[in-house]
Amino acid sequence: MFRFDVIKQSTQSSARAGIMQTAHGPVETPVFMPVGTLGSVKSITPEELAACGAQVILGNTYHLYLRPGREVISRFHGLHRFMHWPHSILTDSGGFQVFSLAKLARVTAEGVSFQSHIDGSTHLLSPEKAIEIQGWLDADIMMCLDQCTAYPASYEEARKAADITLEWARRCKGAWESAGNGHQALFGIVQGGMHFELRRTSAERLAELNFSGYALGGLSVGEPLDLMLDTAAAAIPLLPEEKPKYIMGCGRPEDLIDLVCLGADMFDCVLPTRNARNGQLFTSRGVITVTNAWYRQDPDPPDKTCACYTCRNYSLAYLRHLFLSRELLAYRLNTIHNVHYFVNFLRRMRAAILKDEFESFKKRFYENREI
Amino acid sequence: MFRFDVIKQSTQSSARAGIMQTAHGPVETPVFMPVGTLGSVKSITPEELAACGAQVILGNTYHLYLRPGREVISRFHGLHRFMHWPHSILTDSGGFQVFSLAKLARVTAEGVSFQSHIDGSTHLLSPEKAIEIQGWLDADIMMCLDQCTAYPASYEEARKAADITLEWARRCKGAWESAGNGHQALFGIVQGGMHFELRRTSAERLAELNFSGYALGGLSVGEPLDLMLDTAAAAIPLLPEEKPKYIMGCGRPEDLIDLVCLGADMFDCVLPTRNARNGQLFTSRGVITVTNAWYRQDPDPPDKTCACYTCRNYSLAYLRHLFLSRELLAYRLNTIHNVHYFVNFLRRMRAAILKDEFESFKKRFYENREI
Repeated sequence: MFRFDVIKQSTQSSARAGIMQTAHGPVETPVFMPVGTLGSVKSITPEELAACGAQVILGNTYHLYLRPGREVISRFHGLHRFMHWPHSILTDSGGFQVFSLAKLARVTAEGVSFQSHIDGSTHLLSPEKAIEIQGWLDADIMMCLDQCTAYPASYEEARKAADITLEWARRCKGAWESAGNGHQALFGIVQGGMHFELRRTSAERLAELNFSGYALGGLSVGEPLDLMLDTAAAAIPLLPEEKPKYIMGCGRPEDLIDLVCLGADMFDCVLPTRNARNGQLFTSRGVITVTNAWYRQDPDPPDKTCACYTCRNYSLAYLRHLFLSRELLAYRLNTIHNVHYFVNFLRRMRAAILKDEFESFKKRFYENREI
Repeated sequence: MFRFDVIKQSTQSSARAGIMQTAHGPVETPVFMPVGTLGSVKSITPEELAACGAQVILGNTYHLYLRPGREVISRFHGLHRFMHWPHSILTDSGGFQVFSLAKLARVTAEGVSFQSHIDGSTHLLSPEKAIEIQGWLDADIMMCLDQCTAYPASYEEARKAADITLEWARRCKGAWESAGNGHQALFGIVQGGMHFELRRTSAERLAELNFSGYALGGLSVGEPLDLMLDTAAAAIPLLPEEKPKYIMGCGRPEDLIDLVCLGADMFDCVLPTRNARNGQLFTSRGVITVTNAWYRQDPDPPDKTCACYTCRNYSLAYLRHLFLSRELLAYRLNTIHNVHYFVNFLRRMRAAILKDEFESFKKRFYENREI
């Protein structure tokens, strides 16, 4: 049921516009996917997400497996109905959180055993289990279980993690085929740290497994920005051209432009939602901090060029007041604005690619910056 | 500009249906006014308030005076535009918070001096100042500065507070007349603790001052429920029949029924909003606690008879999950439901009065209770 078509290739760079079809509708690429860790993009409703233009969101396998768990979500035949989001959902495999959030993560022949960060209970996440969980979550796009290395990682560490990730990808593919959940796509993940040679091997061997799409994992894990972009630049061309290319966890607007230039199609990041809750707003002029004293009496919205609900109805003075007063509405209005910004940032990039004007889009982006 | 008309008097009790006209539109009574302390009904937007049926909300003079303060709100010509609420607003006088929240409140000849609970700065709230603040807030309905006694209060304590309240009411009236803010109504407040005789004197002398409406203050301050209702029963008939009668700070659904029966027209209470944030939902079956284990897999909404956004789109299982996960969306969905419940509870009472069926409304209310 899943398919992906590139509908326009830029003549100025590797940027491209495409369209994915999932079991829950179309997704136009390049696309930004807001993060809905626990079955909720923090503070906003599905209707608000849709009004921001979001076509696909991300759910976290590790979190949803632990809480509310299979029994509850199965009662609703998956995450869509449970959380009242009728559009596409991509779930990560849980691997990243197991290694970063859980306690005592230990790789065994079977998979990775760990202790829940909530109650210390012991669990085993295997490739088969990751597919099973994403099966009952009814994700439109599942991710293979992977092992993500921290930065810096030695060649040997990165090689081991990439090898395990590849082995797990094989087992995920097998489990996915056995389960016969044909309406759910399965993406493979390239690892290899910042070692280009490992990235190359990982990408090539992964491509042989013929996934519905391919992701670069293990980026934005603390490495210098240039190194992130260089690694992405080395790896993205190695991914099959006819498949969607997903860069996991990268979200600075400047980087999104560069990554789209390199041919990337999909992005997720907690930056818009987390920073909103910290009072940071992304605007066409740059990032602004809502608590700044010069907004005290400012009747203007955060971004005069923005059509989001927040900018249409509220002033910086009010947003500043709400945030300083720790009013719950503050987090929500900020989140609506930031999610709208990111989703539409990618939509505008797509429109520029379709008109083959990506270079002038990029130029305008930097010209508008004041902050 | 302000006017109030009783359009239907119940033949079964003192209950009545009326309509108020404020500078920002009509308000059908009896009416419940959600509390928006700091220029926001916590966690929800003005559009959501309106969708719940709210026609008037309450703002807190004490809080808004301290934060964001006059300069900011005047920049927006009042609270309506600042907070994006185009309908009616009633503001309290600040008296209640000064005596309950601020530090070192001390009554002087001028008014009451106090220290801000935020930064310890010293302020003086006088009757004239209370009118001035409510002037720049541009409240549709202002309240006179009053002194509220705690429970229990001796006759002497209560008499003193009632006398001061009456003196302040005179000064408020004078300040209001001098300011010439004719589009803003001014209500007087009856005090007197639980001493019926003091309530009588206070009400009679206040009525001589000819306010646009009258409120009972100093109820629901810790007294037994029966005593609250007995005091209200003694005082409500003493208020001028042709003016709106407002019972401040009372909100248990059972009490609202009894108070409407006694002839009360207006109510405010933090119960729906505060309890929502504590996971308690008001339903036709009674109050339910969303964390209850038996809702773990419950696909039903909190109240099948409720037409609010939350009940139309979400299950108890999901609301329980959000609340246990401390997701911000939990507080909001619960608040929408509770505000909808209270606002519509009063609207349904009004409809029953119009059909002269209040007694059967009351009977049905108790029959539906299961919890």
